[in-house]
Amino acid sequence: MNINNQDTICAVATAPGGAIGIIRISGEQAVAMADKIFKPASEGGRTLSERKPNTVTFGRIYDRSSQLIDEVLASVFRAPHSYTGEDSVEFSCHGSSYILQRVIEELIACGCRQADPGEYTRRAFMNGKMDLSQAEAVADLIASQSAATHRMAISQMRGDFSNKLSELRDKLLHLTSLMELELDFSDHEELEFADRTELKAVAAEIESTVSRLMNSFALGNAMKNGVPVAIVGETNAGKSTLLNALVGDERAIVSNIHGTTRDVIEDTVNIGGTLFRFIDTAGIRDTSDEIESLGIERTFKKISQAQIVLWIVDTNEADGQIKELADKIIPLCQDKHLVIVMNKADIAHADGPILQENVKALIPDTTKSENIDINIISISAKQQTNLQALKDLLLSFTTTAEAGQNDIIVSNLRHYNALSLALDSIHRVQDGLATGLPTDLVAQDLRDAISQLAEITGGEISDVETLSNIFKHFCVGK
Amino acid sequence: MNINNQDTICAVATAPGGAIGIIRISGEQAVAMADKIFKPASEGGRTLSERKPNTVTFGRIYDRSSQLIDEVLASVFRAPHSYTGEDSVEFSCHGSSYILQRVIEELIACGCRQADPGEYTRRAFMNGKMDLSQAEAVADLIASQSAATHRMAISQMRGDFSNKLSELRDKLLHLTSLMELELDFSDHEELEFADRTELKAVAAEIESTVSRLMNSFALGNAMKNGVPVAIVGETNAGKSTLLNALVGDERAIVSNIHGTTRDVIEDTVNIGGTLFRFIDTAGIRDTSDEIESLGIERTFKKISQAQIVLWIVDTNEADGQIKELADKIIPLCQDKHLVIVMNKADIAHADGPILQENVKALIPDTTKSENIDINIISISAKQQTNLQALKDLLLSFTTTAEAGQNDIIVSNLRHYNALSLALDSIHRVQDGLATGLPTDLVAQDLRDAISQLAEITGGEISDVETLSNIFKHFCVGK
Repeated sequence: MNINNQDTICAVATAPGGAIGIIRISGEQAVAMADKIFKPASEGGRTLSERKPNTVTFGRIYDRSSQLIDEVLASVFRAPHSYTGEDSVEFSCHGSSYILQRVIEELIACGCRQADPGEYTRRAFMNGKMDLSQAEAVADLIASQSAATHRMAISQMRGDFSNKLSELRDKLLHLTSLMELELDFSDHEELEFADRTELKAVAAEIESTVSRLMNSFALGNAMKNGVPVAIVGETNAGKSTLLNALVGDERAIVSNIHGTTRDVIEDTVNIGGTLFRFIDTAGIRDTSDEIESLGIERTFKKISQAQIVLWIVDTNEADGQIKELADKIIPLCQDKHLVIVMNKADIAHADGPILQENVKALIPDTTKSENIDINIISISAKQQTNLQALKDLLLSFTTTAEAGQNDIIVSNLRHYNALSLALDSIHRVQDGLATGLPTDLVAQDLRDAISQLAEITGGEISDVETLSNIFKHFCVGK
Repeated sequence: MNINNQDTICAVATAPGGAIGIIRISGEQAVAMADKIFKPASEGGRTLSERKPNTVTFGRIYDRSSQLIDEVLASVFRAPHSYTGEDSVEFSCHGSSYILQRVIEELIACGCRQADPGEYTRRAFMNGKMDLSQAEAVADLIASQSAATHRMAISQMRGDFSNKLSELRDKLLHLTSLMELELDFSDHEELEFADRTELKAVAAEIESTVSRLMNSFALGNAMKNGVPVAIVGETNAGKSTLLNALVGDERAIVSNIHGTTRDVIEDTVNIGGTLFRFIDTAGIRDTSDEIESLGIERTFKKISQAQIVLWIVDTNEADGQIKELADKIIPLCQDKHLVIVMNKADIAHADGPILQENVKALIPDTTKSENIDINIISISAKQQTNLQALKDLLLSFTTTAEAGQNDIIVSNLRHYNALSLALDSIHRVQDGLATGLPTDLVAQDLRDAISQLAEITGGEISDVETLSNIFKHFCVGK
């Protein structure tokens, strides 16, 4: 990634294939460079340099040999009142990839540089238009596919998380000043004990807030990447067919040959505003096929990562399948939601409700635990029967866990890691206070916590590599 | 298609997946409706209704329950100074499909209607911002993928074709007035003959211009949809491998099983600024497979539609393959460019140049014709050897035929059909003049020609269905 913020950058900011294509130019020379290729349409019209900020001008873009490339709208922004905080121009062109490529070529010929991924937002951060967690929220916002991810991203972009961190910082600074006070009066022993009570109370409050933020990550991560649902069961029980029915296309290969699904296939589905990540796994059976054995190993690993396990059982072979796999699958479902999905209900010999009772009887008591939530449902993946009930069941597992509308949810691994380090520091502070450690030693841990939290908003980041890692996952043009 | 131009329409004008997504609103209520969901960011900032035209305002879009949907830029345009000629607002949002969908939902709740494909451009036409051929050029411009198609579309959008048609109309009107003059003086026989010489000259000039425009359609159509190149040859000669090497991806299935390519596969490649449409065909051989027989039948049909035929021959089996297929393939290549592509040159027994002489000797004289341009080239599709020479050869077939930079090229079938009807009328005018038909009868054919040409620019089109057919192929948001 280029770290030069002095040059002028350009990029296409829209996806190929639409009616309109946007080209963004930002930097000191943005308006002058745009003027080199742009002519206002109206007779004697003002150049972009002569136009007021925040105005739109209709005109034409010509190449170096005066050939017309396109008729466009040009918007002019002046520092610091732009997205990047720099002088900027946006061309709204006809959405032909050929045209957009030509315009970029002409801008580069004028001395513009093609922008790196996320470079506009990185400049916005560098120029103080937003902090780092807000900048990261921009990428999340663009990627948001559901009400839940949208709400998280927009809250973070608006600064709700930053404000919470700012409150935490104030509390930590308050704690620091209390300690300094203590240091000043350190001759008076009785005063020290009095202060430490307040110190401990403030530290406990900070610890509680940071813990709560950290705990929200499991939910935030699930909302962002999808609640992980493992689909397991014997080969040919209908796992792939169910996945296809849920996903709605032919993503997984379905066939009647045993052991078709060798690799773990993942797909996300938006159910009632919540993203679920369905993980189709290899069928569990004794196999001499080496590749397939690897697949089965991965299956067990995927179960451990899932929040919900769908165990697909062929209703007609329920007795054998459940008895055979119960001791393999059920013990892996501690603290998870297990759904025993009785598939092929359409061609079952017995009717549903009676069968479900029978199913319960089949599960050996030895495999059950208090921490396993076992549910049983009859469906036909092929006939798409009772799928809505299954979806409702899945949704019920998440809504009970979901946070309130206004709670702050951490969904970024970098933030989680920083919070985790800060929590360690705060625990050391608490230990120090409990064991009567000298104030100046405790103060060092406090400073660490402040610094670790500051990394989230980027206050303490001057390290180019860290920034590069954050912004390289952005799309070009943002 | 909705023909109501009174209501206010909205649509997403960018493709999904980019950093930025644009929403366009157009119609009498555009600004008022935008104001219902948009709040300017600056304290006490002006609403969009209070802003001057051609200005950009930063602000936020909220839904009906006051939840923030996005931070956006809003551009305001006032009739008639907008693309459609109506009051318009463009929101530049974060490019999340979820956000764009939410904004559209809110606008619809405010009384906006989702725009039909091409409805913005149709309104621009209805409001006199452009004529019909210019409106059609907008869709061509957005779809343009090469320098050639871009040049055609932008020339048509700027009105070069419209101006040419306007000149033609002037000449036809001049001819009409000459005839009316003749009608006035119809008692004087000697004057009638004098005038008819001039009439014939003007008619011949018009006929020539319309013919030239019609003749440009073959080129224009090839430039727009790609110069059709059929790839033929025996099964397993390497047709699919060559297509893949030219296209650069794994579009066609390649295998060593005879008769893999059952269906006709087409792909376009931009070579040196010209679009080629490569048509991979079923291998030609005697087969008992019914589906494959259908494929071979299609192969012969595709040869007849191609301008260039690439006949792939396995160098190691050249003798047999050429003798067997020469009488099937070569007679189909009248007025086409035939390239005998000696494939698998890397594993050939003899070296290239000698082999090419031998190839010529293999072609029976009975199959050759003066109108077949036969070329021979040695390549290896698998090793990608000599592919550039093949590409250069393909390009040489088109550049000689290509029109000058400033010639008008017709690329639209509707225009071609209208020109064709007009030409028939003009021919009837010429016949009438030659056979001394009464002036008032000739005048009717003249009026027909004027009306047929006027259909191209839409001057005479009030028919809703015709307009609907033209605009339904546009993308939404344009």
